[in-house]
Amino acid sequence: MSDADIRALRAKLKHLDLLQSINGLLGWDEQVNLPPASGPRRAEQLAAMAAVIHEAQVDPELGRVLEQLENADVPLSEDERVILQWARRDYDHARRLPEAFVRRKAALESEGFHVWREARSANDFGRFAPVLEQQIALLKEEAALQGMGDRPYDYLLDQFDPGLTEADVETLFAVLKADLVPFVRAVVDSPVKAHPEKLRGLPVEGQNRFLREVVEAIGFDFARGRIDVAVHPFCSGDAADTRLTTRFSEEEPLSSLFGAIHEAGHGLYEQGLPVEHLGTALGEAVGMAVHESQSRIWENQVGRGRAFWQHFEPRFREIFGERLDAVSSEELFLAVNAVALTPIRVEADEVTYNLHIILRFEMERRLFGGDVKIDELPGLWNALTRELLGFEPASDAEGILQDVHWSCGLFGYFPSYCIGNMVAAQLWKAIRSQMPDIEADFARGDFSRMLGWLREHVHRQGRRYRTKELVQKVTGEALSPVHLIDYLKERYAPLYLPEAR
Amino acid sequence: MSDADIRALRAKLKHLDLLQSINGLLGWDEQVNLPPASGPRRAEQLAAMAAVIHEAQVDPELGRVLEQLENADVPLSEDERVILQWARRDYDHARRLPEAFVRRKAALESEGFHVWREARSANDFGRFAPVLEQQIALLKEEAALQGMGDRPYDYLLDQFDPGLTEADVETLFAVLKADLVPFVRAVVDSPVKAHPEKLRGLPVEGQNRFLREVVEAIGFDFARGRIDVAVHPFCSGDAADTRLTTRFSEEEPLSSLFGAIHEAGHGLYEQGLPVEHLGTALGEAVGMAVHESQSRIWENQVGRGRAFWQHFEPRFREIFGERLDAVSSEELFLAVNAVALTPIRVEADEVTYNLHIILRFEMERRLFGGDVKIDELPGLWNALTRELLGFEPASDAEGILQDVHWSCGLFGYFPSYCIGNMVAAQLWKAIRSQMPDIEADFARGDFSRMLGWLREHVHRQGRRYRTKELVQKVTGEALSPVHLIDYLKERYAPLYLPEAR
Repeated sequence: MSDADIRALRAKLKHLDLLQSINGLLGWDEQVNLPPASGPRRAEQLAAMAAVIHEAQVDPELGRVLEQLENADVPLSEDERVILQWARRDYDHARRLPEAFVRRKAALESEGFHVWREARSANDFGRFAPVLEQQIALLKEEAALQGMGDRPYDYLLDQFDPGLTEADVETLFAVLKADLVPFVRAVVDSPVKAHPEKLRGLPVEGQNRFLREVVEAIGFDFARGRIDVAVHPFCSGDAADTRLTTRFSEEEPLSSLFGAIHEAGHGLYEQGLPVEHLGTALGEAVGMAVHESQSRIWENQVGRGRAFWQHFEPRFREIFGERLDAVSSEELFLAVNAVALTPIRVEADEVTYNLHIILRFEMERRLFGGDVKIDELPGLWNALTRELLGFEPASDAEGILQDVHWSCGLFGYFPSYCIGNMVAAQLWKAIRSQMPDIEADFARGDFSRMLGWLREHVHRQGRRYRTKELVQKVTGEALSPVHLIDYLKERYAPLYLPEAR
Repeated sequence: MSDADIRALRAKLKHLDLLQSINGLLGWDEQVNLPPASGPRRAEQLAAMAAVIHEAQVDPELGRVLEQLENADVPLSEDERVILQWARRDYDHARRLPEAFVRRKAALESEGFHVWREARSANDFGRFAPVLEQQIALLKEEAALQGMGDRPYDYLLDQFDPGLTEADVETLFAVLKADLVPFVRAVVDSPVKAHPEKLRGLPVEGQNRFLREVVEAIGFDFARGRIDVAVHPFCSGDAADTRLTTRFSEEEPLSSLFGAIHEAGHGLYEQGLPVEHLGTALGEAVGMAVHESQSRIWENQVGRGRAFWQHFEPRFREIFGERLDAVSSEELFLAVNAVALTPIRVEADEVTYNLHIILRFEMERRLFGGDVKIDELPGLWNALTRELLGFEPASDAEGILQDVHWSCGLFGYFPSYCIGNMVAAQLWKAIRSQMPDIEADFARGDFSRMLGWLREHVHRQGRRYRTKELVQKVTGEALSPVHLIDYLKERYAPLYLPEAR
């Protein structure tokens, strides 16, 4: 009976999802609440959960249910087909990795993280090089175990964005780079300068109040979510319990605000996934790029726009009072849209950020293509920085050692940040062509049509489509870098290059 | 090889303990952080963990390891013997309960809780009666499955306090009751009256600061623990990560303070258990009564004593300033040691509290002895309240429906509260006879000798001894109610019955 089998499949997937959500809570708690000396215990708890989850992932019972459904005579519904297909992919993926390999990978992630932390603080790439080499070898081994030993980087990209290939990324980034490098040069050479430092010293309590009002206004549901403070901003949980974090700095109040809007964008996607399908592909995000598009569209297209500030500036001034007397409206808006060169990715604005990602993609494809030796990496990093940003980092700590990702084996992940920006811009174009007056909503503080559109076209789809398919389906054209370039020029040229209009 | 087997046993127990600790964190998070609409998801997560834990508890591999150790030629060390014996008990206990029974029990707990909540708010015992009847039938069934069908109440008591029997409790409570009922009568009839209401309105922020200073001073380690706010104060976690909660009320500032000291006493016990033995009986508390003795000794014997306030009163006044100008030192001390009749157990002071427990024991033993019908219970409750406290509750909501315990199947648990008071008083006597000047330490704000003594004699022992054995071993005499009576008279007679001295 296909009906009983699909119920059995759903039950298995739901159990697995619950276990993974518990694991997610352990991770959230580690960042938000864990007492300083309780770290080793938490590591043991996470390892115990990993073992339990792995067991559920490779459960032979699950394999039998999948086979029965695949061989059933009764035709499956469209929804059931989607669920079955992804469950099969995840099951096979897990079964192909021997337990010893999974343990080795987890151990190297943990070791890599600690070695990287030391290497970065000692500004010593040589200390990090051996684990980097091991990470790459291990990931090549993993790709081979998955039957993709000839295209390890494609395998990695596909983990984060189903269907995305190195060739796709290469094409998208080549177009972006050609236009963006000269545009960034023009903007940073402009005599117009933003002065975000004028906002220094805004009290944290007011920041917290304002940021919660904004996050609630754009539609984050606090009845099934919360915001806490953590060292690194992130979004965790799922549609049933979505948890955002932010951090506060009196020095950089806009950084907490936009960090929170960004995470709330991720949170809105999670909250918009169909809760009745949690644990199946229909209740899951498409991939990292689409996830990032949701955080970016709220942070940038919405949150850095004139209409948004038309509505929120009065409240911002009401909360901070005379501290803002010396900041004009135009200065505030320019600070919100500050562009500045920095060697550090996480400090970059939305314009230059994309160049940081192109740099990392260039490094990664060569690492997995075998075109570069480990000890040539710092030189390559610096040369690429010069080519893309026009200067060289002062040290490896500010260069190749700045990001945590590679230490934990996260390769193929960086591109999704920039592709997320592209998807956001392309969605934004579609939204404005379907609802030309949408920004008038924002100016009134009404974000419900915007959220409703994303809910319908993106969130509720779950993983029904792969990244490129979804973009094609929703916007009517193939994923393209042009809309990101257009958006950036439309927003930043009038501010920084008024004479060029 | 016995060595390999004992390592295998420790690994199995550790895995089980980690899973249980994760379950504990889910429970903590539910009380402290859970968004209001995320309850159903948490219930599903808890059910998923319960299934995983049950599987680990009845793992046949664990059974084989136990047998191999029991049949080994190589003699076990004393520690190993203790670990093996309790692991066997827990394993057999879990194996004897069929999975269907465990599921039925969990469902009834959840249903019982909801029905109780409705019944209490409707003041309608009739609505609660059927689940109460089912709970009792189910627990009798459980006792029978465990081979103790002829003594179900002994079975229940033993779950919470290994080795304790109905006959023990009956003897202890009879002596206590004979002395305590007239003493309470004399104290409440005394013309001396405490006025805790004079402390009303102390700001929560100051309460929070003071309470954290006190909890840190008595030795709670914030490097591996924390305090949060929850509706019901509790202590969860273990030696590696101990989490207390309290609640604040401007109306009753002493209630938050002593609630926090009480939970910190539980926390100090957990933090004092040998972390290297976590998951085995050597890293586990003896039982509920000894646990309660640790919370009570810090809350009452220490925290309500003159020496404690000699040290802390200046700081208390410093924090709250002129709000305390109208309260003399003697009035403050009397408020700390207020005695008043109330129908509600959780609002009772440390003197009358014991009578609330005797009442519940009288009810429970009759329920499991079959001497009473369900519909006679409210009348019995009221009659016992009159006998013990001298008045009748105004309603069942303030009477038999007041406690959550029975709704969740917690029978045999109440006695441990009062026996914990007895153990605390008996330990206190031993401490003062071994360190007669201990209160001079408290007056200097030094609680390290006190904590050191408890660490050595109680905490570090884990579950090496059963409740009565531990008390005998540590104090040199059998568990007795006399020390509790002596302690209460010593503390309260001078305050309320000065003429009687």
